[in-house]
Amino acid sequence: MPPSSHLSEVYRPDFGMLTDLYQLTMAAGYYDQKLHQRKAIFHLFYRKAPFGGDFALSAGLALAIDIVKGLKFSADDVQYLGRLKGANGKPLFKEPFLNYLQRLKFTGNIYAVPEGEVVLPHEPLLRIEGNIIECQLLETALLAVMNFSTLIATKAARIKAAAGADTVLEFGLRRAQGIDGGLTASRSAYIGGCDASSNVWAGRYYNIPIKGTHAHSWVMAFPSEEEAFEAYAKAMPNNSVFLVDTYDTLDGIAAAILEGKKLRERGHEMLGVRLDSGDLAELSIAAREMLDTAGFPDAQVIASDSLDEYAIADLKARGARIDVWGIGTRLVTAHDQPALGGVYKLAAIEEDNGEWSPRIKLSETVFKVSNPGRQGVRRYYDEQDDFPMGSIIYNQFNGAPSGRFYTEEGFSISAPPGLREDELLRPVFEDGVLVYASPSLQSTRDRALKSWRNWSRITNFANFPHGLDAALYEEKMQLLEDFGFDAL
Amino acid sequence: MPPSSHLSEVYRPDFGMLTDLYQLTMAAGYYDQKLHQRKAIFHLFYRKAPFGGDFALSAGLALAIDIVKGLKFSADDVQYLGRLKGANGKPLFKEPFLNYLQRLKFTGNIYAVPEGEVVLPHEPLLRIEGNIIECQLLETALLAVMNFSTLIATKAARIKAAAGADTVLEFGLRRAQGIDGGLTASRSAYIGGCDASSNVWAGRYYNIPIKGTHAHSWVMAFPSEEEAFEAYAKAMPNNSVFLVDTYDTLDGIAAAILEGKKLRERGHEMLGVRLDSGDLAELSIAAREMLDTAGFPDAQVIASDSLDEYAIADLKARGARIDVWGIGTRLVTAHDQPALGGVYKLAAIEEDNGEWSPRIKLSETVFKVSNPGRQGVRRYYDEQDDFPMGSIIYNQFNGAPSGRFYTEEGFSISAPPGLREDELLRPVFEDGVLVYASPSLQSTRDRALKSWRNWSRITNFANFPHGLDAALYEEKMQLLEDFGFDAL
Repeated sequence: MPPSSHLSEVYRPDFGMLTDLYQLTMAAGYYDQKLHQRKAIFHLFYRKAPFGGDFALSAGLALAIDIVKGLKFSADDVQYLGRLKGANGKPLFKEPFLNYLQRLKFTGNIYAVPEGEVVLPHEPLLRIEGNIIECQLLETALLAVMNFSTLIATKAARIKAAAGADTVLEFGLRRAQGIDGGLTASRSAYIGGCDASSNVWAGRYYNIPIKGTHAHSWVMAFPSEEEAFEAYAKAMPNNSVFLVDTYDTLDGIAAAILEGKKLRERGHEMLGVRLDSGDLAELSIAAREMLDTAGFPDAQVIASDSLDEYAIADLKARGARIDVWGIGTRLVTAHDQPALGGVYKLAAIEEDNGEWSPRIKLSETVFKVSNPGRQGVRRYYDEQDDFPMGSIIYNQFNGAPSGRFYTEEGFSISAPPGLREDELLRPVFEDGVLVYASPSLQSTRDRALKSWRNWSRITNFANFPHGLDAALYEEKMQLLEDFGFDAL
Repeated sequence: MPPSSHLSEVYRPDFGMLTDLYQLTMAAGYYDQKLHQRKAIFHLFYRKAPFGGDFALSAGLALAIDIVKGLKFSADDVQYLGRLKGANGKPLFKEPFLNYLQRLKFTGNIYAVPEGEVVLPHEPLLRIEGNIIECQLLETALLAVMNFSTLIATKAARIKAAAGADTVLEFGLRRAQGIDGGLTASRSAYIGGCDASSNVWAGRYYNIPIKGTHAHSWVMAFPSEEEAFEAYAKAMPNNSVFLVDTYDTLDGIAAAILEGKKLRERGHEMLGVRLDSGDLAELSIAAREMLDTAGFPDAQVIASDSLDEYAIADLKARGARIDVWGIGTRLVTAHDQPALGGVYKLAAIEEDNGEWSPRIKLSETVFKVSNPGRQGVRRYYDEQDDFPMGSIIYNQFNGAPSGRFYTEEGFSISAPPGLREDELLRPVFEDGVLVYASPSLQSTRDRALKSWRNWSRITNFANFPHGLDAALYEEKMQLLEDFGFDAL
């Protein structure tokens, strides 16, 4: 089976060390307490939708799969850990635990939302079931890849939605946070709906279409803009987009048109002009007019310069004639909210008697109290057109969802009858064995575009039926009461 | 020689593909025009200091060195590029260029600011001299590693400065943007002054001290907080920090003290308690009082929860008794400004006659117009105590700096006599050969702490003598006039 993401190909295969030290000190503690084979259930979810929206677009599962497959510690890793010292100068970890680590691999179950699916706050993106020590050791790396991928896919979906039928290119590698910050951003941006990337490495690994023509430095390297365009057109006649703002933009457009005419004489068509500064609304309108008048109605106007979904909406409102949007920094760093803040919470633990005991993490705000149990998410859709009609988090230990559920505000709602039901999380690992065949990135992108479009049709999300199944809600309230919280 | 950064160890060694497609289409253009051996000079610099400050802390050179050493294209890479198609369905790249790429390596010179040194806006972090095609192919990857490393080192320096004599721990891996987003962040945060990281992989690669104890899930896995602390203390007696806010924080502190007494009976000392939610000022004051009263004056109060330099200053102003600050998301993503925005600009090109011709990138704002020539940076320090007294960008083609220079506002200032002078950029590659011995990360961190402290003593940075050497300033003004700009 080919690697599911760039991680296992470009990194060494062992990801055990990609963790916070406290996961290892806790692991040593569980081992010491002979609790390392105690079964537990964790969920990875986010609490608040990013960018002020109502939901997020899931991404990162392929990377998560590589992380799980790579939960291993090499002899070198274990030697390093053996050298760590505690406060008294004595080793932090004992020999038996280190030997155990070197044999460790993931033997549990993982269920996940497929990439490219809309996920609501509190709904698990991943459910991890297995020996508590294995689940715990995966936490940091799973959060790292799921948080970032989902964040960028969501940002890309918002940008693609703002661009409407226009083409969106991701240009962000130079401002990305680290190298696979760039690779993961390109992958996630493509899932979220971007049409192509400038990132050559991402193109090669993920078969993402890649785009690029020339920079200001190309123009500056020649005595004049005309000579620069001429040289470029001769070398790249079938990739002829001219960057026109190195000196004066309108002069640049005129020079591009001149070169476009020469190209046509040589049997090629100019693809377009690119604007990278100035008032993109005014300049694009001027460019469109000049190109149309000169007989280039099919030449595209490409724009870039600190763009995001807000800038696109603003430029469109001002009548900009832009066909292709190049988006860099603000997409690949999710500039207005550069972290999703997803969490990984223990929801149940096996007791000595073999029974599952639910767990919640308390918080001063009820909103932040985690949900107990083995959580599933039941989706309800209109049979006719896949329009989402409801989404319920339920505890599978209580059986199927009751159809009656509670919203965040505590209202009780019944699911309407006659809807198509779908279980959101799919089995990915069973007893440590990968059982999930990752779809192609292209089909994931198609799914994402459709999913985002359908969910975006919900006009008043506060009224959309979503929340906790009645049985889960009542169980959670009971647990809170047991902890001495007043009825809510 | 060992690898200078994790990049060459964890990634495959070839970084040629880590670029934007337009670098390759331009490269093909230069090759087609037989200009690929034309010499050029590029500078990598930033225009505006991040986080509203006056300067940045340089970092990333070790990663940049790996990028330069890895400027190579494998047979597979070239095959992939050969399959790319232009608008007419014909190959984008021609055979001779692809063959050339497969033989390509960096043969030029690179000068760089050492890591851990303060750098002002417009001062080059890197100067890259060589065949234009090689310089251009390095642009994207060099920007990616230098932008992000410098951004995070700067953020860490600000946070460490706010924390004063307290310890600062970096905890961010789970919210980092990609895996080496996390590794590079841990490395840069350590350079910037963090004392340790939670990131085990970073600890192993970079010999950064690592720290960690237990999470909320540990407490939740046991029937009671007391039992959880007892189990942890038994397993990790020499690493005994108790996380006290899983349920009620004050109860948690009491439980920690109870366990601390038992630990002491067994011959160990409790290291401290950790607060991760609530009003950290009030809770830390309460924790300090309770610990002191109970006979644990040396137990530390560790705090975390969406902290950054602003939160630290605020908590200190409110009298918080916090000894150790754990900083995650807001540090590793540079949350309030997640990209530095560094650029890579052509500043000179060799003409047919072998003479260097200066180049500037125009812009509507003079501030954004790049500087021409082969730029050096001359630093002036007080002989006595290394206090910075001035910093001048000059064009080495005009000889040594004149001592007379212009600030951004166009004022002419003369450098005071009797100062120690230092040339900021050091040779790193000469004719493609690495000539720079990277200092240890520990000594880089020492340099950074000293450098940041010295520069932070400048109280009114607007009056600090910095800007362009007179000859460079006049040359730039002349070039602007040649382009038809009015006198400024």
